[in-house]
Amino acid sequence: MDERVYEHAEVLVDWSARVERGDDVVLSVGPDAHELAVAVAEKLGERGANLLATYSSGELERAYLQAHDGEFDEDPAHERALVENADVYLSIGGGRNTSAKADVPSEIRQKRRKALKKTREARYDTRWVSTVHPTRSLAQQANMAFAEYQAFAYDAILRDWEELAEEMARLKALLDEGEEVRLVKEGTDLAMRIDGRTAVNSAASVDYDSHNLPSGEVFTAPYGTDGEVAFDVPMTINGEAVRDVRLEFDDGEVVAHDAAQGADVIGEILDTDEGARRLGELGIGMNRGIDRYTDNILFDEKMGDTVHLAVGRAYDACLPDGESGNDSAVHVDMITDVSEESRLEIDGEVVQRNGRFRWEDGFEG
Amino acid sequence: MDERVYEHAEVLVDWSARVERGDDVVLSVGPDAHELAVAVAEKLGERGANLLATYSSGELERAYLQAHDGEFDEDPAHERALVENADVYLSIGGGRNTSAKADVPSEIRQKRRKALKKTREARYDTRWVSTVHPTRSLAQQANMAFAEYQAFAYDAILRDWEELAEEMARLKALLDEGEEVRLVKEGTDLAMRIDGRTAVNSAASVDYDSHNLPSGEVFTAPYGTDGEVAFDVPMTINGEAVRDVRLEFDDGEVVAHDAAQGADVIGEILDTDEGARRLGELGIGMNRGIDRYTDNILFDEKMGDTVHLAVGRAYDACLPDGESGNDSAVHVDMITDVSEESRLEIDGEVVQRNGRFRWEDGFEG
Repeated sequence: MDERVYEHAEVLVDWSARVERGDDVVLSVGPDAHELAVAVAEKLGERGANLLATYSSGELERAYLQAHDGEFDEDPAHERALVENADVYLSIGGGRNTSAKADVPSEIRQKRRKALKKTREARYDTRWVSTVHPTRSLAQQANMAFAEYQAFAYDAILRDWEELAEEMARLKALLDEGEEVRLVKEGTDLAMRIDGRTAVNSAASVDYDSHNLPSGEVFTAPYGTDGEVAFDVPMTINGEAVRDVRLEFDDGEVVAHDAAQGADVIGEILDTDEGARRLGELGIGMNRGIDRYTDNILFDEKMGDTVHLAVGRAYDACLPDGESGNDSAVHVDMITDVSEESRLEIDGEVVQRNGRFRWEDGFEG
Repeated sequence: MDERVYEHAEVLVDWSARVERGDDVVLSVGPDAHELAVAVAEKLGERGANLLATYSSGELERAYLQAHDGEFDEDPAHERALVENADVYLSIGGGRNTSAKADVPSEIRQKRRKALKKTREARYDTRWVSTVHPTRSLAQQANMAFAEYQAFAYDAILRDWEELAEEMARLKALLDEGEEVRLVKEGTDLAMRIDGRTAVNSAASVDYDSHNLPSGEVFTAPYGTDGEVAFDVPMTINGEAVRDVRLEFDDGEVVAHDAAQGADVIGEILDTDEGARRLGELGIGMNRGIDRYTDNILFDEKMGDTVHLAVGRAYDACLPDGESGNDSAVHVDMITDVSEESRLEIDGEVVQRNGRFRWEDGFEG
């Protein structure tokens, strides 16, 4: 087996999830993620953790959802009990077709998501980490050859996470002290309150409240958003292509939206519930191992010189203890490129201009 | 998709497991059983059941077990909670290599089995059904071409189960009334008590206390076994070839054993625990859709004109209410051909001779 697969498994189990002897681990395996799952199983055996593998197949879900009448039971006892009793939840994406669920009506998806809300919340209470095994299907989505995509993915995943964590700590400190963030570029002038919120140094480890591998972003939970923002990074959301989304905010809520493509998808997401019209996340990408967009949110939102915003659910880690964030069944990220003609300000001071941070060579305050 | 896959799924969900709206279903999926899993997911959606798919991979288990030091936690909470909260447990075997775990030391296997005892017992408390998706690996094990094997497997699975259940009811009635069974053929003269035990009409449905698809056997839980028996059907047990096993019983316990091949495997099984030296099952194969041995116990033991015995655990369904059967961590079946020069007696009366039952044309009392 490719040595990088073992390295990936080791980062996931040891650095990301901090697996220890006796941990009850759920390993969610995509249909084409078998190789990484085998390497992870070996690591879990070495650590003396307890492994239960689940099968996460878009085709299975599609067949189930298409056949169902849509009256889903809320949080079925068996699945909920599994997750509530898990210490660690590792999700390894990797199917054979990223559009496997493309023809499932969005109404059915939404009902299903709502029905599984407590199960999902229980997963967020574990030491959960999401990663992907680089597959041919993901290479295709990225318009890349398979070997090229593998090299890309492992560049993003097999980083010196401790070093990156140190750099990201600088930005976290500025955000923690700040009260307002302003993002300015063409088509974008957006002000967000961050007073009282805690930024997460997302270094791909649960010890940093970070749950994605790869990661490499600093994020917080903004509120009271005002202004407009244009997302120029192309994406696939719920299986549909989305281009050039524009959102207009007033007093924290989306009051207008449009898109060059996929406006319907965005509209459906915003209509999911009340929280879906508010921001749940402001994230600043700092993983320069990711050097291009691949239409995969796990990678795209971490890319250096990008900023992303998510409508919907906020992460508890960004909120004061016991305070609940923006509540929603959705969390949908959208990305804007800040490598050129842009600036990010905290309380009126420029922190990043044209993709360079104030502590970097080439920064022009 | 092959129409037979959908028919298989329908038999499994409706006839075998009697799935109803709201049932919490665990679907255990082998790595090469994806197609059948998709068809089953569709049926479960139609029925309004709740689906949680687990991934059952020999390679995963092998990697985990090989890396583990062998000090397994007993019944990890997450897996046990999943099974205890399930109404239905459907297991679809089908990997890419039936020898995937061949190099796992038997000591490690045994420790693992013992550690998961309560989880396994909880599974037996669900409406559980085991089946296989016909795969290339199973075709290879059977020395058959893939399409040939598919035809064989679906002949065994897609039967008129109600009709077969009616025929099997005749044998069940004789066994329920009987006190002692005697099996006689070359190398075999074995007497087993069945007084007070209830035979199961194993018609591939939980409504018949039958948990295999295909099934087609009548079985009971014998005790007080005396005499000797020769198993002439070749098998693979725990990944190793086993040929011509001979067991000698005295007062219910195996007192001697040998085999032309695989005697060590048999010895290890017999040494698992006290119950492993006693019989847990006497089964009489009545599925004539199965017309040859394929080195797969799920099929072989159901074949018409065969009798099988299992050392280890007895099925509760064969025992008086509240009485506990032969307790053991193992249940290992071995098969003998009774198509020629053989007879099966109940209380001294011949019930089957040379493969013909007393109610069939050609029976020679």
